[in-house]
Amino acid sequence: MAEDHEVVVFGVWGSAYSRRVETALKLKGVPYKYIEEDLSKKSPSLLKYNPIHKKIPVLVHNGKHIVESLVILEYIEETWQEGYPLIMPKDPYQRALARFWAKFIDDKCFPAIRKACWGEEAQEREKAGEEAAELLKLLEKELQEKRFFGGENIGMVDIAANVIGFSLGAYEEASGVKLMTREKFPKLCNWRDEFMSNSAAIKENIGPSREELISFLRNYFLKK
Amino acid sequence: MAEDHEVVVFGVWGSAYSRRVETALKLKGVPYKYIEEDLSKKSPSLLKYNPIHKKIPVLVHNGKHIVESLVILEYIEETWQEGYPLIMPKDPYQRALARFWAKFIDDKCFPAIRKACWGEEAQEREKAGEEAAELLKLLEKELQEKRFFGGENIGMVDIAANVIGFSLGAYEEASGVKLMTREKFPKLCNWRDEFMSNSAAIKENIGPSREELISFLRNYFLKK
Repeated sequence: MAEDHEVVVFGVWGSAYSRRVETALKLKGVPYKYIEEDLSKKSPSLLKYNPIHKKIPVLVHNGKHIVESLVILEYIEETWQEGYPLIMPKDPYQRALARFWAKFIDDKCFPAIRKACWGEEAQEREKAGEEAAELLKLLEKELQEKRFFGGENIGMVDIAANVIGFSLGAYEEASGVKLMTREKFPKLCNWRDEFMSNSAAIKENIGPSREELISFLRNYFLKK
Repeated sequence: MAEDHEVVVFGVWGSAYSRRVETALKLKGVPYKYIEEDLSKKSPSLLKYNPIHKKIPVLVHNGKHIVESLVILEYIEETWQEGYPLIMPKDPYQRALARFWAKFIDDKCFPAIRKACWGEEAQEREKAGEEAAELLKLLEKELQEKRFFGGENIGMVDIAANVIGFSLGAYEEASGVKLMTREKFPKLCNWRDEFMSNSAAIKENIGPSREELISFLRNYFLKK
């Protein structure tokens, strides 16, 4: 049984949220078993492990289940700490900033991006597009001259920002809405290049192919 | 200048989010200066310290500013740790559960409660009321036989649940919508009694009076 493995991830390969969990485990070098869920027919295990939200990703560690991708990232950081690469700073203030930006990405950026690409009405999409541009500007500014949001290494904010690094380009292509140009967001675009190509933890973790991701997203959002 | 104090909280007395920060500081025994904000005329300091969301609460500690109440709670926990009462468990899994429930309260319960009490249309309020009841059931179940969500002592989830402990009764009275009866939610009601009366950190922190809170909420929500 899958649950006999020490670390199991229930995910959907096209979901940035699932990728976060896998990226963190790969960065730490923690082996895990990955189970692909079919969102149109959720498995009894997923429903058992996440009875409240019934969503991926779920991390199961020695039988204990943890849900919500940012909560899982903190769990991974705290569980595999000594002797493992860290994804969060040590200083409480820097940690607070990391949590702030990760939350900002989830609460503000991602909903605006989704609406800009997949909103029902043209006017709604346009308004969300403007909002998304303002939010991306804040991320562009936050990057400053840093290589990653986490500094020299990929940290929690980078992993959370995979909704931009991993998903945004495919969102744009699948929906036909362009949000992030190199001209307007040079730092974010450079960051995306670095993020997507630099680390084996990301590269090995991109999934089947870009075409398949685009097709996955079209199916997912147009069905809704 | 207020900013010369080591710890400053910018808040609004009727806001459960502000209360969270004050409750945590009081539980820890950390002295602070409190600055009441006027949301209709936000101070230059608030806009300087929270330029992105422009919201209370803001915690300023030795000139560093932290925003978002749950992020602030984690900062307070990490900054005043050794020799201070803890508001989070030590075990990573228990910490993940605390973060899960705190997020659940903010992302699910509070929006449903607000909509049930202050939604624009009767049908919207009714639907939100049913949703809120389902969500409160989950909290009722999570309490089990514990005195607090945190066990024998008030922890992060209790502090986050002050939107129920501190606000819900006043919400109900101000809006005329009843969501939490003792008959349906005996454990949550007992928890609220304990939470609101047991600890000086909460009692001293309730604000002017219930009548004033109700009046504050009516003004706040009916103006929107």
